[in-house]
Amino acid sequence: MKASLSIDEYVEGILQKDISVLSRAITLVESVKPEHQQTANKILEKILPHTGRSVRVGITGVPGVGKSTFIEAYGQLLLKKNHQVAVLAVDPSSTLSKGSILGDKTRMETLSMQPDVFIRPSPSGGSLGGVERKTRESILLCEAAGFDYILIETVGVGQSETEVHHLSDFFLLLMLAGAGDELQGIKRGIMEMADGIAINKADGDNIVKAKNARSDYANAIHLFPPTESGWIPEVKICSGLTHTGTEEIFEMIDKYVRHSQSKNYFEKKRRQQNIFWFENLVQQKIKDRFFGDAQFLSRYNEAKQKIENNRLAILGAVDFIFESK
Amino acid sequence: MKASLSIDEYVEGILQKDISVLSRAITLVESVKPEHQQTANKILEKILPHTGRSVRVGITGVPGVGKSTFIEAYGQLLLKKNHQVAVLAVDPSSTLSKGSILGDKTRMETLSMQPDVFIRPSPSGGSLGGVERKTRESILLCEAAGFDYILIETVGVGQSETEVHHLSDFFLLLMLAGAGDELQGIKRGIMEMADGIAINKADGDNIVKAKNARSDYANAIHLFPPTESGWIPEVKICSGLTHTGTEEIFEMIDKYVRHSQSKNYFEKKRRQQNIFWFENLVQQKIKDRFFGDAQFLSRYNEAKQKIENNRLAILGAVDFIFESK
Repeated sequence: MKASLSIDEYVEGILQKDISVLSRAITLVESVKPEHQQTANKILEKILPHTGRSVRVGITGVPGVGKSTFIEAYGQLLLKKNHQVAVLAVDPSSTLSKGSILGDKTRMETLSMQPDVFIRPSPSGGSLGGVERKTRESILLCEAAGFDYILIETVGVGQSETEVHHLSDFFLLLMLAGAGDELQGIKRGIMEMADGIAINKADGDNIVKAKNARSDYANAIHLFPPTESGWIPEVKICSGLTHTGTEEIFEMIDKYVRHSQSKNYFEKKRRQQNIFWFENLVQQKIKDRFFGDAQFLSRYNEAKQKIENNRLAILGAVDFIFESK
Repeated sequence: MKASLSIDEYVEGILQKDISVLSRAITLVESVKPEHQQTANKILEKILPHTGRSVRVGITGVPGVGKSTFIEAYGQLLLKKNHQVAVLAVDPSSTLSKGSILGDKTRMETLSMQPDVFIRPSPSGGSLGGVERKTRESILLCEAAGFDYILIETVGVGQSETEVHHLSDFFLLLMLAGAGDELQGIKRGIMEMADGIAINKADGDNIVKAKNARSDYANAIHLFPPTESGWIPEVKICSGLTHTGTEEIFEMIDKYVRHSQSKNYFEKKRRQQNIFWFENLVQQKIKDRFFGDAQFLSRYNEAKQKIENNRLAILGAVDFIFESK
């Protein structure tokens, strides 16, 4: 492998679906070094005309819901349908990343051995906003390499699932039958954001419970405010273990894509997402300028701690922080 | 009325519940003039020890759900229970503000004539973030004046209801029976944020429909992820017109307050809200510094428009904006 590639070599390698070049480009995107970011930006600008032609599916659900088994099964279905599948993880605690950290070879073993599959665990470290920026750019690189079905995995108990919602065309919530404790920790509001719900582990003794849950959730969804595109989220049951129900989920997503394209909503949503990311990046950069100043940062932390401990006037605290700026 | 008051005169007037002084202080808070804001900040710092002793209830719902009629009825119930009631509106399109703009005297006519009631329509103009900052500070001023039950009205179809959620101890969603079209425009995720739902206009022929809706929504709520405090949101029916159901809503909110206090969640949430507002203010101030620069602003707008019209590389656009900074 060449030690260093030119911008054009990167671009050409990606467009030719050279997996090692794609991986190296994503590593540049994930790097915190300014020179790497500059190279990454130049690559991104050049590959941009080749991006966008994929279905981006965000997948969320609490730990234990069976995300990696589901993705293993769903990915194999996509391959059978001649899709080229990229799987990206957003949070360091996602099943993908855990697998890679623990060297757990059983995770997505079959899927990861297929030629038309690219699996990338989450970038470790860095701020949350940073991780999502990197994921967004990794999606673009994968698209340029010809992957036309992108699965984006997030754990659904933290901050990141709202952001993944802004990265996805379709946002799929994986759940377990029985609700209650299984939902512990999932952020409220996520359910209303989902374009589809899949009740996983619908196998063996669980099938009846899963079917009941399906009709409960389907009823509940009809009480939600309508979506902007008029799409009514659907509820499916599936089992990553027995590979059942994945076909129905594929059809649901396919139906959603056709629905939103017919309403001109598909492209509208992507444009809105671009604006969202643009504003996000500008805001992040503005913040970096201020928080890069050691005095500002220490005053900020001091004020924040005071507010946490008692009810110091917030306005006075803000004035204090900006005094020297 | 004195043309100009000293800080101490403001503070004393507010603490003595002098409504005209309170109104003038809120006008200072709402003003965009720096000297007014400085005075307002000094007043706020001094009254801070006298704030916090109220129940802050955010009320949201689409236009037509009957917010002002409900607040009229609910406010009168609160008065009967010897509460002192302040009603604040967040968005310019709220019923309160409309009433005041149109000079519509029928809005909250009975309530507004009571001595223990203070009604303040939304500040007009200014950025959204600004309006919420002002509302937060107006709440503090009302609390210092002795109002111990604060109703904060928002329309629920825009950006502001998420923010009102950050201002409220209890977030009440008003709905109509029949769902569907009545929810058009309400933001998805709001339902999962609500601590309680009240199905309004449960009068006459509507009662049966409202009761059915109540049990539908109560079932749906049990499928939502659990709240941080363990509170299970309740669904009530009511009629602002016939004043029925308001007692049950009062009891629900009272029960919530006791529940969250017993879990030490009430104060925890307020502390979290303080941190949220602090971070918000810092961020706003940082943004103002950049966007106050005419060249930065024009480059920002230019880049944003390009991204809206086509898929210009977002990263390149961001670099372009910051080139001169």
